[in-house]
Amino acid sequence: MKKIALFTLFLTSVVYSQSKDQQMFKDIYTFSLTNSNCYSWLDDLSNKIGSRLSGSVSAEKGIAYAKSKLETLGLDKVYLQEVMVPKWVRGEKETAYILDNKTKTAIPICALGGSIATAKNGLTAEVIEVHSLKELEILGTEKIKGKIVFYNRPFEPENIDAFKSYGNCVDQRFYGAKEAAKYGAAATIVRSMNFRLDDFPHTGAQSYGDLPKEKYIPTAAISTNGAELLSKKLKGNSGLKFYMKLSCQTFEDVLSYNVIGEITGSEHPEKIMIVGGHIDSWDLADGSQDDGAGVVQSMEVLELFKKLNYKPKNTIRAVLFINEENGGKGGKKYEELAKQNKENHIFALESDAGGFSPRGFTFECDAANFEKVNNWKYLFDPYLIQSFTIGGTGSDIGHLTSAKIVKAGLAPDSQRYFDYHHAANDTFDAVNKRELELGAATMASLMYLFDQYGID
Amino acid sequence: MKKIALFTLFLTSVVYSQSKDQQMFKDIYTFSLTNSNCYSWLDDLSNKIGSRLSGSVSAEKGIAYAKSKLETLGLDKVYLQEVMVPKWVRGEKETAYILDNKTKTAIPICALGGSIATAKNGLTAEVIEVHSLKELEILGTEKIKGKIVFYNRPFEPENIDAFKSYGNCVDQRFYGAKEAAKYGAAATIVRSMNFRLDDFPHTGAQSYGDLPKEKYIPTAAISTNGAELLSKKLKGNSGLKFYMKLSCQTFEDVLSYNVIGEITGSEHPEKIMIVGGHIDSWDLADGSQDDGAGVVQSMEVLELFKKLNYKPKNTIRAVLFINEENGGKGGKKYEELAKQNKENHIFALESDAGGFSPRGFTFECDAANFEKVNNWKYLFDPYLIQSFTIGGTGSDIGHLTSAKIVKAGLAPDSQRYFDYHHAANDTFDAVNKRELELGAATMASLMYLFDQYGID
Repeated sequence: MKKIALFTLFLTSVVYSQSKDQQMFKDIYTFSLTNSNCYSWLDDLSNKIGSRLSGSVSAEKGIAYAKSKLETLGLDKVYLQEVMVPKWVRGEKETAYILDNKTKTAIPICALGGSIATAKNGLTAEVIEVHSLKELEILGTEKIKGKIVFYNRPFEPENIDAFKSYGNCVDQRFYGAKEAAKYGAAATIVRSMNFRLDDFPHTGAQSYGDLPKEKYIPTAAISTNGAELLSKKLKGNSGLKFYMKLSCQTFEDVLSYNVIGEITGSEHPEKIMIVGGHIDSWDLADGSQDDGAGVVQSMEVLELFKKLNYKPKNTIRAVLFINEENGGKGGKKYEELAKQNKENHIFALESDAGGFSPRGFTFECDAANFEKVNNWKYLFDPYLIQSFTIGGTGSDIGHLTSAKIVKAGLAPDSQRYFDYHHAANDTFDAVNKRELELGAATMASLMYLFDQYGID
Repeated sequence: MKKIALFTLFLTSVVYSQSKDQQMFKDIYTFSLTNSNCYSWLDDLSNKIGSRLSGSVSAEKGIAYAKSKLETLGLDKVYLQEVMVPKWVRGEKETAYILDNKTKTAIPICALGGSIATAKNGLTAEVIEVHSLKELEILGTEKIKGKIVFYNRPFEPENIDAFKSYGNCVDQRFYGAKEAAKYGAAATIVRSMNFRLDDFPHTGAQSYGDLPKEKYIPTAAISTNGAELLSKKLKGNSGLKFYMKLSCQTFEDVLSYNVIGEITGSEHPEKIMIVGGHIDSWDLADGSQDDGAGVVQSMEVLELFKKLNYKPKNTIRAVLFINEENGGKGGKKYEELAKQNKENHIFALESDAGGFSPRGFTFECDAANFEKVNNWKYLFDPYLIQSFTIGGTGSDIGHLTSAKIVKAGLAPDSQRYFDYHHAANDTFDAVNKRELELGAATMASLMYLFDQYGID
């Protein structure tokens, strides 16, 4: 009898939890789709403030804006964390031409982040096309010296996950200049990180690594259409020349900030769960997808909890990191201070893959926690959140190194992301209101579950 | 011993089938993402031919184009089916104004399909705003007579499936004029079938039903921003007037065609499986999402099978239906001829929900076949095809009434669909190449499975 009674009690409690969780999910999604502010915040960030490259005036405006909006939510704390960030400025719009048999064809390029400038009047050189960093070794200094190395390995279209194609190509952008400089290249250009054939050059981070400064060479991205044309023309005339002019400059590091809003935990204030995105963007556009979306979704998670009168057991922070794009200084500083203050982070969720329809999450966690997540799938199913995988979660939360932490990354539909990523068309109109709101609700739902049931 | 041997044989065969199916899926998706023609076909249909309203010259061009492309695929049969279709012409672009205290505000409207024209100089009347057809009964002739009935019930944002919101609103568009005419309304305007607040009026089908012709009244859609403004102004001045001018005309029905391409079955030529979309569109834009996407995806299924050298057991037809938008005459004619020729259709798949990232399928079938489909989920999972539900599948295949048929509808992500549906922005740039190709591959994969394993 006792056993049966206990079992009945257990079952009743399971059923109660299930229906309580289902109701909370419903409340979260309904609120997000009917009353949330995230889309209007993104409108402001994108259209009133604009691009937010670290160290720029508009980045500071974005920080002040996000802080002011968090302050309207009735949180327990809203504050800034000081972070020194790089300040790199693109300068005058770049120009480039293919110079082929007396014809001069203008080609859309843009300097990669941190690139040095060319000489004031630009740089003209022959071009050598390669498809990997390894090829440089085979070609050697003799064939590379004085030339522009043109990295032209395209995205593999056959991958279902667009980020896989990006991961398999981005070494050309990140290490291209550093490696080519070793062989005396005059400059590098890299095919834009994009499936689509179009006229947008896509900027992004690159690193000269430990090269001495006098060895730095200018480096730029070329649109995919430009890359196709250059490659075609090279086949007809391997001696053609390429002209490029970059006017970028790097200044001393400047003071900037992470923005943090917090609801202090009602039962375990010392246990911290964070949800975040990065408030900086590249300079070519608003950065509405990368990562204005993640910023306003993270803010929305706090708004949702406050408006639904949900009192989290653990401390929940929205962290809007600065400088994800070209240095990661915000993420590093957050972790440095967390360690210094002996904070205990149990969970971190990042949204930095665009504001498209959410499909699921990636997780960095052990088997026990992944099983736990999989047991929650039935709750997400009515909202078409159906993909739960082990994989990389986000570069800002990547700095958090607590042994016991569970990390998650929102995984939106990835197909359109690289149409906009780091390019001049990453603007507000690329974001769909409902997709953005569904993402925010999906993030809040996962935060709710980990807050309720903890990590294993 | 015998039992064990049989069991081993059974297991071996199951494992072989699984890996064979997995390989076929991989081949299908890889081909579609790397070598398919569907995107370039859509480019032609949208940008070289344009809108394809039934009875128009460009619809005939679209039909000829699709037939000519099917003829390049090495199919067993490519042919046209004669269908008589309505011919309705919008005429001069519509104009409308809110006339409020001597101010005149231009409002974007467009006639609904089949609407009659206003008088040559337009029509001016007071406006009565309602939110349902039922409200008309309560208001009665006294309050409605001589006025413009303004249907303004918006899409419910809280539904996850955008089509549910559409389904809950579209009665206003479809029956609005017919019902209001019964109470002597001068005309009707309906809030566009769209979540988003924007300036695009969305046309669509409406029906005067069994009203005598002399009772027909002009009927138009108003943009969502226009509807918001009109509603707001009515609150301040319920006596304001609205001016609208429509110049549409209905002509005699004309001859048009369904386009059919066929691979004849190698084992069961008499068993027919169809995959289709509709080649007609509304007249305001290319109809790239509705339903150029479904047309080229259906053609792509045949291309995939031919290029992968897959010889289907059953007869597989791509059917490009005419006149889905304003009459459904193509679907009806297809079924009429199928019955006349005593054809045995076992499976039908329709793509008419846009070319967005595919999420799964809806099915109309019995429990046994739905269980069968669910056992295939593991094959679709790597391609993020994860939503399999019972529900409406498509209006063209809706006419097929064979008792034993299984019907399916491709279910792409629905969030952006109504941003474009029946509006002037349903153009080629709204379609993402990879999303379109993933949809085609997803359709081919399901066709393959039903071809291999039949229906229960």
